[in-house]
Amino acid sequence: MDNDLILLGHGSGGKLSHQLLSDLVIPTLSGIPPAGQNDAAVVTHNGQRFAFTTDSYVVDPLFFPGGNIGCLAVNGTINDLAMMGARPLYMSVGLIMEEGFSRAELKEILDSMRAAADGAGVAIVTGDTKVVPRGKADRIFINTSGVGVIEHDLAIGGNCARPGDRVLINGAIGDHGIAVMAKREGLDLESDIRSDCAALNGLVEEILKEGDAVHVLRDPTRGGVATTLKEIALQSRVGITLQERALPYNGAVKGVCAILGLDPLYVANEGKILVVAAPQAADALLERMRSHPLGREAAIIGEVTGEDDRGRLEIDTVSGGTRAVEMLAGEQLPRIC
Amino acid sequence: MDNDLILLGHGSGGKLSHQLLSDLVIPTLSGIPPAGQNDAAVVTHNGQRFAFTTDSYVVDPLFFPGGNIGCLAVNGTINDLAMMGARPLYMSVGLIMEEGFSRAELKEILDSMRAAADGAGVAIVTGDTKVVPRGKADRIFINTSGVGVIEHDLAIGGNCARPGDRVLINGAIGDHGIAVMAKREGLDLESDIRSDCAALNGLVEEILKEGDAVHVLRDPTRGGVATTLKEIALQSRVGITLQERALPYNGAVKGVCAILGLDPLYVANEGKILVVAAPQAADALLERMRSHPLGREAAIIGEVTGEDDRGRLEIDTVSGGTRAVEMLAGEQLPRIC
Repeated sequence: MDNDLILLGHGSGGKLSHQLLSDLVIPTLSGIPPAGQNDAAVVTHNGQRFAFTTDSYVVDPLFFPGGNIGCLAVNGTINDLAMMGARPLYMSVGLIMEEGFSRAELKEILDSMRAAADGAGVAIVTGDTKVVPRGKADRIFINTSGVGVIEHDLAIGGNCARPGDRVLINGAIGDHGIAVMAKREGLDLESDIRSDCAALNGLVEEILKEGDAVHVLRDPTRGGVATTLKEIALQSRVGITLQERALPYNGAVKGVCAILGLDPLYVANEGKILVVAAPQAADALLERMRSHPLGREAAIIGEVTGEDDRGRLEIDTVSGGTRAVEMLAGEQLPRIC
Repeated sequence: MDNDLILLGHGSGGKLSHQLLSDLVIPTLSGIPPAGQNDAAVVTHNGQRFAFTTDSYVVDPLFFPGGNIGCLAVNGTINDLAMMGARPLYMSVGLIMEEGFSRAELKEILDSMRAAADGAGVAIVTGDTKVVPRGKADRIFINTSGVGVIEHDLAIGGNCARPGDRVLINGAIGDHGIAVMAKREGLDLESDIRSDCAALNGLVEEILKEGDAVHVLRDPTRGGVATTLKEIALQSRVGITLQERALPYNGAVKGVCAILGLDPLYVANEGKILVVAAPQAADALLERMRSHPLGREAAIIGEVTGEDDRGRLEIDTVSGGTRAVEMLAGEQLPRIC
């Protein structure tokens, strides 16, 4: 019976999402088996490669510490393009509003979208507005689609991690998900946890200066760092081992997660990038990332292991053990983006 | 007070929509005054012109005679690209589903999207799936964005109508809106009114063989033929006069509209195209359109008048009078696409 209905977990970015996409959505829409999903499609026209991506945003609440649904929608789509090594150029905006939604809140959201697009050098060039009767949507949903140009010949994708590669991240894990959840649940946190929502295309430009040492770029949004790395391991048919002691966290996030029984490795980020790169370039890359405002707390957090470990993600814990990490199974925090 | 809230009419495609877009959405997002809206944006990259468009679909009911939300979403975005004279190439699909939505219905919708894309020669290359809790959306909303290439130098747009031009349409008016409305309201129509939902890119290819005689292509969806022609008149700063006796209708649609007090000129179409073209090419264009399966009932329905008549749309009625036609003011039939 459950098999017949769509569940919240089908939108989690975790295991149920993958099953729905692999079994139904991708083969039906594209006619090809899901070879492994990247953040954007790459298409070639007259020898020029372009990236094309889409995302719908249903975050609840609409406004949270560090951002709102508007800048989230713009930055999220910019980041999906940047993760393919593309320079984002153009964006579309599709609004679905519930009758009775506040025009003032709409204005605040649109202002925030414009500021985010301007900041990242992206032009919003087309859009669509729909209104549904009261009770038929939850205030506002936003779709953004984006087009970018790939101006290099590098092969970057989830299937390009190689044994020996290092795994880097540009900063603290889990801030976005916890900021949104805390606001939604009305938790009165003593500390000020803010979403990390940011456009990563500038940082990616810096990272790409390391050339073909860069193998994978991926932003750990829904499903978090754990699910994203598990995806990369599966797509590249390698193992990945993380060092728990190397993982950067804001202390407050770790504390809230401990109290609520959440694993921050599964919590969504909106301004973080995972980079898988050749070992000889890892230190230089780390310095590059740290030199960028969005990478000051960058760290090398793990390593890609032999091809025998097909799709295995492990973590060497602070206490000296090793545990396997799986994809997010259901839905830890719904409507986080 | 009403000014502070979003109303259903703001999504109608009519006057309220235009006010919201002109006063708030377009200037805020794009930073430029709304010069007049076309169905898609045209962007240039390395000398190549591309069209880029987005649309969200919230039609109720999801399934109706002649189609469902899936083929509607695919064909609608293909048509927006085709109306810019572009050849549609790639499409994205963003799904927002309500928890508990039927997986079987999802499959039927996706199958229909795939068939529509295949039929029009368009590849669905990227997508996104979100799920919101029960009661926070109405079963499923679909966003489609599309990219096409413009392979000619013709200037086609809502601002290109010239005095003396003829106005053509490829067939009967109002079928989509009435089919959806009848299904939603459970009207037991004796006649079988079906949505005209179709991809128009093939017909547009045929039309474009008339070269620079073709000035405007526009699909009269939300707001119908009246609102679309009023838009063109305003953008081109001309008048347009329709001949009521020349307007093609399926008799059943006219009958239902008469009974319900609806004006079919404001009812949405999803497989119709309005063409504004130079007078010397009008007859040849009519023949071309009639030679295409989607243009068999094509007709010349009106004429563009002098530049003095800025934005005036008139109709010469069967009874011998002339009446002015305005944009759809509020919302005649909500959630029609």
